[in-house]
Amino acid sequence: MKASELAKVLGGTLEGDDVELTACGGLEEARPGDLSFCKDPKHVKLVETTKASAVLLPPEWDKGAPCTVIRVADPNHACMAAAKMFAPPEPVRAPGVHATAIVDPSVKLGKDVHVGPFTVIEKGTFIGDGAVIEAQVFIGEGCTVGAKTHIYPQVTLREGTKVGADCIIHCGVRLGGDGYGFNNGRREDGSVYIEKIPQLGIVEIGDGVEIGSNTTIDRARIGRTYIGPMTKIDNLVQIGHNVKVKGYSGLIAQSGVAGSTEIGYGCLIWAQAGISGHIKIADGVQVGPQAGVPQSLDGSLKYVIGAPAMSMKDLAAITLAPKMIQKLKGEVKELKAQLAAK
Amino acid sequence: MKASELAKVLGGTLEGDDVELTACGGLEEARPGDLSFCKDPKHVKLVETTKASAVLLPPEWDKGAPCTVIRVADPNHACMAAAKMFAPPEPVRAPGVHATAIVDPSVKLGKDVHVGPFTVIEKGTFIGDGAVIEAQVFIGEGCTVGAKTHIYPQVTLREGTKVGADCIIHCGVRLGGDGYGFNNGRREDGSVYIEKIPQLGIVEIGDGVEIGSNTTIDRARIGRTYIGPMTKIDNLVQIGHNVKVKGYSGLIAQSGVAGSTEIGYGCLIWAQAGISGHIKIADGVQVGPQAGVPQSLDGSLKYVIGAPAMSMKDLAAITLAPKMIQKLKGEVKELKAQLAAK
Amino acid sequence: MKASELAKVLGGTLEGDDVELTACGGLEEARPGDLSFCKDPKHVKLVETTKASAVLLPPEWDKGAPCTVIRVADPNHACMAAAKMFAPPEPVRAPGVHATAIVDPSVKLGKDVHVGPFTVIEKGTFIGDGAVIEAQVFIGEGCTVGAKTHIYPQVTLREGTKVGADCIIHCGVRLGGDGYGFNNGRREDGSVYIEKIPQLGIVEIGDGVEIGSNTTIDRARIGRTYIGPMTKIDNLVQIGHNVKVKGYSGLIAQSGVAGSTEIGYGCLIWAQAGISGHIKIADGVQVGPQAGVPQSLDGSLKYVIGAPAMSMKDLAAITLAPKMIQKLKGEVKELKAQLAAK
Repeated sequence: MKASELAKVLGGTLEGDDVELTACGGLEEARPGDLSFCKDPKHVKLVETTKASAVLLPPEWDKGAPCTVIRVADPNHACMAAAKMFAPPEPVRAPGVHATAIVDPSVKLGKDVHVGPFTVIEKGTFIGDGAVIEAQVFIGEGCTVGAKTHIYPQVTLREGTKVGADCIIHCGVRLGGDGYGFNNGRREDGSVYIEKIPQLGIVEIGDGVEIGSNTTIDRARIGRTYIGPMTKIDNLVQIGHNVKVKGYSGLIAQSGVAGSTEIGYGCLIWAQAGISGHIKIADGVQVGPQAGVPQSLDGSLKYVIGAPAMSMKDLAAITLAPKMIQKLKGEVKELKAQLAAK
Repeated sequence: MKASELAKVLGGTLEGDDVELTACGGLEEARPGDLSFCKDPKHVKLVETTKASAVLLPPEWDKGAPCTVIRVADPNHACMAAAKMFAPPEPVRAPGVHATAIVDPSVKLGKDVHVGPFTVIEKGTFIGDGAVIEAQVFIGEGCTVGAKTHIYPQVTLREGTKVGADCIIHCGVRLGGDGYGFNNGRREDGSVYIEKIPQLGIVEIGDGVEIGSNTTIDRARIGRTYIGPMTKIDNLVQIGHNVKVKGYSGLIAQSGVAGSTEIGYGCLIWAQAGISGHIKIADGVQVGPQAGVPQSLDGSLKYVIGAPAMSMKDLAAITLAPKMIQKLKGEVKELKAQLAAK
Repeated sequence: MKASELAKVLGGTLEGDDVELTACGGLEEARPGDLSFCKDPKHVKLVETTKASAVLLPPEWDKGAPCTVIRVADPNHACMAAAKMFAPPEPVRAPGVHATAIVDPSVKLGKDVHVGPFTVIEKGTFIGDGAVIEAQVFIGEGCTVGAKTHIYPQVTLREGTKVGADCIIHCGVRLGGDGYGFNNGRREDGSVYIEKIPQLGIVEIGDGVEIGSNTTIDRARIGRTYIGPMTKIDNLVQIGHNVKVKGYSGLIAQSGVAGSTEIGYGCLIWAQAGISGHIKIADGVQVGPQAGVPQSLDGSLKYVIGAPAMSMKDLAAITLAPKMIQKLKGEVKELKAQLAAK
């Protein structure tokens, strides 16, 4: 897209060459062909050194630029608008079942459902109106997928899984696997035994949930593993059997929640955090990155960090312990000297 | 299922309305339509507040319930029996190769093998009697899958992988990938080089092994990456090249074992733990959640935790250091005052 | 292969029975039927107890062996040569598009491209000369795959993804997912809101990059998530939106990099490490296993470890704190006694 065209669409004015633009990028990351943006004069150094071919600047900017300038009232907002124009067009997933998809005759498809190539949907499953099931998906027997839910390629739903409406399930998500359910121990003769516990329950996902690529959520032993409405789950997260996430929570990448634990409303579990089984996290609690939570959090701490999880202050005290010890060592040495001198 | 039917099947007696029941659940999690259970009078509060439509109670229970009651001798046992009735029926995977599966003519299929739709099995592979290979699986050249092993949808086995009998391989498992095998360094001129090391070995999985969703096990540089019999591996676990897990061990979700490490018999590696390469973990050792093991464990500690991994007692001492320091500070201050007073 | 044949090929001399050999293995791991090797007399104990059927030994070895011996000048080198002979033959991926693949008519395929069964390639995509796209792959609209790049089964590339030349993308890799992009907060009335931020950018992978099984790389909010040339990424790694990895770096298994962070040239991020968002890691820095990096690293430390990440020395000081405290306690006690005695 020509800079002049873009200026017109954004309601801005062009200064300099009418360059061809193909993408957006921050001032530092931008390359030739990119449009960047700056609002605040304190970033003037980044403007001076950017490799962008054009930059969106506010009317009052008087510090120049090494490239074409498009002046607009709100550069941040204009850049988001431009980004939408440069974005790969969202693929159209028109209603209809692809000729190669294998959909059992007993499956109930709502109105305007899209089913992509090589997808398998087994008997007794229900797919709601306007749902999009992309290519190479596997949906087992007796599942439910709510209206307008979008399932990306190569997702698997084991039998009995229920997914709500308006959900987004990204590539490689695994819902309803057996997880780790064994009785371990030693027999009287000292030999180890490991017996599989049947996993008789299901996974149930509420409305408006998003689940990131390659995340795994295990079916319940009995009853349901439950992910409440509007919960947002990132990539590579593990959620064990019979976990209950009440809703409106976030679980960031590579975090894990062990079996039968309950996560309250409005919690945020940061990346790589681990939460033990059979505990409760109170509403609104945040668990920091890489934190390890061995027992229930009643909400008296709003943010925990470290392993075992503690307050920021307590973790800082541990980190500072060597410094404190050095100081004490000095004082003890001084006392010794004083005592000897008496 | 009607409560009256269920009471009959479970050999119990019905008290209250003959409600319709569709699932099982713990007292706290249960919803209308659920059957719950309680054995111990100390949980009376949970019974009083449960939303279950019916609850299994022992004959001696005299504290009432807010819903239909089914009296049975052993409520826990009866609930498991009921859960089996409510569970989604296990899908039947009848013997036979689906018309869309692509099985090389040289593949040797045992008796009563099931091969699902869109599955690819390449040349020279052997599938044992009664094995179930579900939909959309990829099995490369020269693989072996043992009798009665069950491979769920969207698993990949790279060439030469051997899987034993009676194994369960869950969705999205990747066996035999190249993993991270590079020579890194700097040339004399300071430039970085990164060269791929050919991964010439295979993955070999023993009998009775279960592998959780999206777990990855890398092929050996030479020889075999070996997972011994009855080992149970959870979801999202990473096992590097030439690792040897002797057998009868458990590896919980998101744990990782680096290259050429040996895990003894009967070990338990808890969630998110990491074990360095080229070390040995003695038989029966447990590595706690999120622990980081930098060197071999000879079994003198049966349980390690923390990073670097240590005893529970040593980790507790670090966690308590700030408190100890505060106490010492007080004592030193007191000594100073006393000394000044002399 | 007979030991005598192998001796001939390797230019060695056979001593003992002409056994049948089928694989290579280290002295400890080897089983009957295996060839092992030893160069250094200090490992004599391992030779004495090996279960290998034959062992490669140097001419000067005078300590015997419990099995067939093949004497060669360089046993390590000879074993690698033998391993290549025992390795499963690399599957041939001949040029051509499998009859079951669904390739949009608008897709531009270079010369000698291989497209495997059940693979889907959507409109406007470009595949370079000699690229190998294996079975059951999904490549969305408007993607680019460079010459000689090898994509293993069950990989997904969302729309607009660009992959360079000479890359290797292992099974189950997810490129271009939306990742975790939400605005979270509380409204004035105290209720929680979670709004999806459109992810308008793409993923761009440079030349010579290798990406391990089940790794996930998110598309940019605007612009590109960029993985520079010759970067090597292990299994189950998570890379957030707008991350920039300059190039020639390694990211080991289960590590994670949060959004908008920049990783310099020649960095090594060890297993299970986590790097926060919006920071910079200087060229050549190594981040140790399980380390958690909350802020930028300017290169003054070449290696960091722990969480929050620090020098090895600082982490050691924390680990040693309890010992230091015990020592101080003893000294303070002694001082008290001395003072009381004065």
